[in-house]
Amino acid sequence: MPVPGPGYAITTRVEVPASAQAAGDLAVAVGRVGGVVTAFDVVEAQTSTLVVDISCNARDETHAGEITAALEALPGVSVRKVSDRTFLLHLGGKIEVTSKVSLRNRDDLSRAYTPGVARVCQAIAANPADARRLTIKRNTVAVVTDGSAVLGLGNLGAAAAMPVMEGKAALFKRFAGVDAWPVCLDTQDTEEIIRTVQILAPAYGGINLEDIAAPRCFEIEARLREMLDIPVFHDDQHGTAVVVLGALRNALRVVGKEPSDCKIVVCGVGAAGSAIIRLLQSGLVKPGGPGDVLAVDIDGIVHADRPGLDSNLRSIAAQTNASGVTGTLADALVGADVFIGVSAPDLFGAEELATMADDAIVFALANPDPEIDPAVALQHAAVVATGRSDYPNQINNVLAFPGVFRGLLDAQARDITDAMLLAASAAIADVVAEPNASFIVPSVFDASVAPAVAEAVRQATAKKDVATV
Amino acid sequence: MPVPGPGYAITTRVEVPASAQAAGDLAVAVGRVGGVVTAFDVVEAQTSTLVVDISCNARDETHAGEITAALEALPGVSVRKVSDRTFLLHLGGKIEVTSKVSLRNRDDLSRAYTPGVARVCQAIAANPADARRLTIKRNTVAVVTDGSAVLGLGNLGAAAAMPVMEGKAALFKRFAGVDAWPVCLDTQDTEEIIRTVQILAPAYGGINLEDIAAPRCFEIEARLREMLDIPVFHDDQHGTAVVVLGALRNALRVVGKEPSDCKIVVCGVGAAGSAIIRLLQSGLVKPGGPGDVLAVDIDGIVHADRPGLDSNLRSIAAQTNASGVTGTLADALVGADVFIGVSAPDLFGAEELATMADDAIVFALANPDPEIDPAVALQHAAVVATGRSDYPNQINNVLAFPGVFRGLLDAQARDITDAMLLAASAAIADVVAEPNASFIVPSVFDASVAPAVAEAVRQATAKKDVATV
Repeated sequence: MPVPGPGYAITTRVEVPASAQAAGDLAVAVGRVGGVVTAFDVVEAQTSTLVVDISCNARDETHAGEITAALEALPGVSVRKVSDRTFLLHLGGKIEVTSKVSLRNRDDLSRAYTPGVARVCQAIAANPADARRLTIKRNTVAVVTDGSAVLGLGNLGAAAAMPVMEGKAALFKRFAGVDAWPVCLDTQDTEEIIRTVQILAPAYGGINLEDIAAPRCFEIEARLREMLDIPVFHDDQHGTAVVVLGALRNALRVVGKEPSDCKIVVCGVGAAGSAIIRLLQSGLVKPGGPGDVLAVDIDGIVHADRPGLDSNLRSIAAQTNASGVTGTLADALVGADVFIGVSAPDLFGAEELATMADDAIVFALANPDPEIDPAVALQHAAVVATGRSDYPNQINNVLAFPGVFRGLLDAQARDITDAMLLAASAAIADVVAEPNASFIVPSVFDASVAPAVAEAVRQATAKKDVATV
Repeated sequence: MPVPGPGYAITTRVEVPASAQAAGDLAVAVGRVGGVVTAFDVVEAQTSTLVVDISCNARDETHAGEITAALEALPGVSVRKVSDRTFLLHLGGKIEVTSKVSLRNRDDLSRAYTPGVARVCQAIAANPADARRLTIKRNTVAVVTDGSAVLGLGNLGAAAAMPVMEGKAALFKRFAGVDAWPVCLDTQDTEEIIRTVQILAPAYGGINLEDIAAPRCFEIEARLREMLDIPVFHDDQHGTAVVVLGALRNALRVVGKEPSDCKIVVCGVGAAGSAIIRLLQSGLVKPGGPGDVLAVDIDGIVHADRPGLDSNLRSIAAQTNASGVTGTLADALVGADVFIGVSAPDLFGAEELATMADDAIVFALANPDPEIDPAVALQHAAVVATGRSDYPNQINNVLAFPGVFRGLLDAQARDITDAMLLAASAAIADVVAEPNASFIVPSVFDASVAPAVAEAVRQATAKKDVATV
């Protein structure tokens, strides 16, 4: 059963008979049915009645109804209105476009618009590189989706993806000062998506792909990286991989193991799992060493001879499972040092966990319900991380994407490399000075994360440029 | 010769020997070569020297150089730095994306982003009309160009069009609180432009087409209007037509003529001219009445039998020139009550003007150089308007597009009709309570214009909806 959280918060306006116990009675009633009171405001106080707004977190819609009913059942209490605080927050959208220049008088207009703007246009036409100096391109990222894999909800389409993309844009500004704009495409044709992004690209300094279903997302990203002169980053792949690798680095420090000695099981080989495996192989796990990575999907352990592999799985098979192991997830877990799940809820329990190596590390990141109950995992594993905010070690992409794009834009990077992603993941890990089992990643509100990630990306970009020259 | 204006303004930092006459000497030197001093700031004052920023308007780059040279030539004066104030204003772009919601803590994140946002996405997926309530669609317009006709500069392409589209977005916010986003397309293929806008449309409540070359713009607009459920407005056409008709309405009041009695010559049959003619015919000029419209282009008066007419000109020919007149612009002007030019500089002079009817009205709107020298026109015509800010009666689209879209968005309009455009133009005219020859349109900074236009558009939308029901 999910825990009541702020994602489902209601404010109920009730009229109650005025009395010293009114507040206590209301709070007790909410608590009795499992609601968590977060705020209490008296809106009107008459001699005989009070009007009170009582805000609380619920589990879901049914639970919200139970809370309202519990309030209504109190003697003399009537419910006037129930507001859903999440919907209230989203009304009219979450971002706006504001002018950075003053437009008070005719002179301002003449400079910002016609006739003055003509010379600025001509300067860019004469020297296209000036677009990065004289337009928003310098600080602006397109957050592009086709709405085919919105959060864990599936194929909701372009319009329904907007609230996520707007939220992402708000986070970009909040955490790294990046201007981001939602680009929700009403097509799910790979060729059309690629061509549309290419047509839109001149205005942007970077492309953040988001919530595009696998395997389409791999081709779209690869082709756009090939054709565009700005970095293309698929957050579901690389954002997740960067944070997971940062967390893993610290988790391994906590248990005192070397990454290259570890047997690592990655469960789920969609966008996130594939990117995690690729980044592990390009940095932490040395080929030919004692360590290995096993990829597991719904059909079991991925190996080169497994029938029906698509091109992504063939490439994963070629990079993992050096000894050609076959079998189920349970088989893969035997003796494993690390489990990284980006797949589905409730895949294993204490029994399989007990077969892992000593000081096992478990990242059970399926949302909202992890691959293994975190409470169970915490009893047997040395370090546990989830995607949830109600347990320690929340793996959250917000730790990566704002700083990564801050760095890319500042460096005017034209592409993005594994070296930059690894630098970003090390920067996230290093923000935690002394990791312990409950503290392997910094808080998303730690203001030093984005600047550290940005600086790491800038340095990696500079190194690459030197290497290229 | 152009007049020095704020579109070409420089700030020159000079070091001068400290003296009581320093300020006067500098200002006189600038004035002697024709620069217009707009600001004077002492930046540093030492015992023997002053550092001064002197800002002034120039005609163009050569003139700016002459001004700097004139300052440098003063005894003891040295120029430290010359800044172009227009370029300074455009550095880093003119708009930004900001969050409307607070993201201070984990609860805020949970509501604005995951997990809370999931329910908002699901609500839109279940009921697509909710996108207007729960996303930025409600208040957001795409400013779409292919960069093929940027201002009067021609085909500069997508990147070089950005400064204009950003400026437009800034004006949308400044004058009507509309969020507008520049969509500069790196294609000039009609089919690709149409398809790209269709793919992007779900996120927007309206489409403002901008600086797309004729005749391509006509097909793009017509096809998009057909396929989209949001209004599509080509500002170069309809924005100009709305303001011109508003101004014409007041100009005719000043001279005491009825629109339907007038012979009106429209010179230039591109985007603006064609839209002006169509809106005239749908509102002011009654078919079969004593008045008529003559369209004139580079090949002379448009008439149905003229060879080589494209589909736009054929449609114009069918609506104008009831008596089948042929000839040149000079022929058209004989006896005309109104001249509306949206074409090219210096097409006629006092001689042709004298052949027009008494109390002639001349709108010479070619930019920056009108069809007839405004100083000459003012000597012979009763009312003169231009596109320039240095003469009375500036015809500026800023009077129309912000209020038009404010009204369309508020009404959640699904399309745009001539009745709405005519209502907008009447609203602009009516802001001027007592028009006279020098005051037929309100100032662009008159804060009552956009609300009046918006209200007129909202009412016209409501009437149309009633009519449809």
